[in-house]
Amino acid sequence: MRATVFHAPGDVRVENVPDPRIEQGTDAVVRVTHACVCGSDLWFYRGISRWEEGYRCGHEWMGIVEDVGSEVTSVKPGDRVLSPFAFSDGECEYCLKGLQTSCVHGGFWGGADSDGGQGEAVRAPLADGTLVKIPEVVADDEALLKSILPLTDVMGTGHHAAVAAGVRAGGTAAVVGDGAVGLCGVLSARRLGAERIIILGHREDRLEVARRFGATDVVTARDEAAVEEVLEMTGGGAEAVLECVGVKSSMDSAIGVARPGGTVGFVGVPQGSEELNLGRMFGSNIALRGGVAPVRAYIPELLDDVLAGTLDPSPVLDLTVDLDGVPEGYAAMDERRAIKAMVRVR
Amino acid sequence: MRATVFHAPGDVRVENVPDPRIEQGTDAVVRVTHACVCGSDLWFYRGISRWEEGYRCGHEWMGIVEDVGSEVTSVKPGDRVLSPFAFSDGECEYCLKGLQTSCVHGGFWGGADSDGGQGEAVRAPLADGTLVKIPEVVADDEALLKSILPLTDVMGTGHHAAVAAGVRAGGTAAVVGDGAVGLCGVLSARRLGAERIIILGHREDRLEVARRFGATDVVTARDEAAVEEVLEMTGGGAEAVLECVGVKSSMDSAIGVARPGGTVGFVGVPQGSEELNLGRMFGSNIALRGGVAPVRAYIPELLDDVLAGTLDPSPVLDLTVDLDGVPEGYAAMDERRAIKAMVRVR
Repeated sequence: MRATVFHAPGDVRVENVPDPRIEQGTDAVVRVTHACVCGSDLWFYRGISRWEEGYRCGHEWMGIVEDVGSEVTSVKPGDRVLSPFAFSDGECEYCLKGLQTSCVHGGFWGGADSDGGQGEAVRAPLADGTLVKIPEVVADDEALLKSILPLTDVMGTGHHAAVAAGVRAGGTAAVVGDGAVGLCGVLSARRLGAERIIILGHREDRLEVARRFGATDVVTARDEAAVEEVLEMTGGGAEAVLECVGVKSSMDSAIGVARPGGTVGFVGVPQGSEELNLGRMFGSNIALRGGVAPVRAYIPELLDDVLAGTLDPSPVLDLTVDLDGVPEGYAAMDERRAIKAMVRVR
Repeated sequence: MRATVFHAPGDVRVENVPDPRIEQGTDAVVRVTHACVCGSDLWFYRGISRWEEGYRCGHEWMGIVEDVGSEVTSVKPGDRVLSPFAFSDGECEYCLKGLQTSCVHGGFWGGADSDGGQGEAVRAPLADGTLVKIPEVVADDEALLKSILPLTDVMGTGHHAAVAAGVRAGGTAAVVGDGAVGLCGVLSARRLGAERIIILGHREDRLEVARRFGATDVVTARDEAAVEEVLEMTGGGAEAVLECVGVKSSMDSAIGVARPGGTVGFVGVPQGSEELNLGRMFGSNIALRGGVAPVRAYIPELLDDVLAGTLDPSPVLDLTVDLDGVPEGYAAMDERRAIKAMVRVR
């Protein structure tokens, strides 16, 4: 089959790789129909995180089951499924707690040992614990499928930021970052009932999406000026802050705009943000919670809302490419010509 | 009156200072009967935090009300009272949330602008929001007063660590640090019903107190070896971790021994601990919450337990000095000859 392979920073290629097949009784093989390029893929694409030549790419995908191992009971060939960005057994202590990203048998798509989602097919280990069947009523409704696709990562990640930050009905949330996760964070804060949602970002096209998603206030200043603006407009900070970038300046801003006693929900993969303003956190009892999102835990409730028509994160997917267009999808995101690229595989 | 004054690292002196008097209608003047030297006093005593010559010392104290301003209604001359280490108005948004350390009109004892507790008397601003009356039944029961005294700081701070860490009945808690706060953290974890309480420390005399306070396991290894030992004995870490020191190695250990999905409750004043293992926190969804303890919020419930005989933190006070002995109290704690010094003022 054809799949996306990392060669070097700035160089991902779609090329021939071995076809996946059932190896364990708990496996499924899934033909990928839709995938995405993730903002976190840009970390290796830009050479910021070290990747090896030959690593497979893509962790956001959905498709149609082609084959299942003898132990798989929850899905069958022909079923449409979506996958979270991590696989998990669904049975261990952490999975039962809803923290599937810490599954003792789990792992992540792509890299050295797993198929990536940016390809024609995926061998999915632990299919019962990982895959979620898309109800047959969705059928081939392409618009609905596009609304479901972000549940594989960015929508669940934005939701995790909101949950970790303790967004509550009637409260105030601040979202740091206007990438796909930040925008989904806005949507999540609105879904959880926040009355005031302030987004900190810089790009007008994305902030327009944020407004459509429910942002009530937009702050385009940077760093300390942005912090001062939010402190001023909230009379001391936002009780719930969603950190959706992962670099030092965004983490500083997130801690800076948090209200005393508030919480920063952080979901941006840390990239040089390790040195925190712990003095402010300590003095004002500002908590930091979050991390890699257990998207699998959130898919059922978010999928219900998408199917009910009350949740639609698809506007973050503002570029569509085919499988051969994956390198262009990376380049467009790297150059900020696109918020997020959808790969329409077949 | 006589009170403790900072001159230089290693040099605190008890000398004559102006008598306190009522300045505002919300003030009380309190004759100090008991005070303490705090582990955090050692930061300026050791020259680690910068203090100015002439700063007044001591933030843990209790005494007998001598005079009150015209607006004070909750205490009257002759009442025995204890004070949290911060004063607060009791009325603002943060006080009403139980976060009195962020009070918009509040402040801390000692330093340039306030009387310190290590002296004969204190002008207490915002007396109604700050002071807690000790029931008359306590009278002059010196043993009971000694059990109440740690509620001014270390007992409430250990409790805050336990609450922030999410200690729950039947759960596992790890306590990093065997100073007075760490020991009170053990006591707090037991009070909240933790079934297993692991303390990480190095000094046998203190660890013996920890055992009396309810520690079920003692880890005396350091740094990575300690982390490995706790991970091994808990099968992956403690769900609730109390960080009771504030230096980099203790914070690293606290994050290192936290179970995926767990929480580090941090109450040690940060001293060079700003660079966190954010990668581990992110990858395992380990939260960090806590900060300067809103001890005022906790005094009523803790005082109830002390009076009921179910809580007694007094063993952390293993040295008693009189007011002239304050410099010796600092020295003894600095040289680790004492866990914590009580100052019996009069």
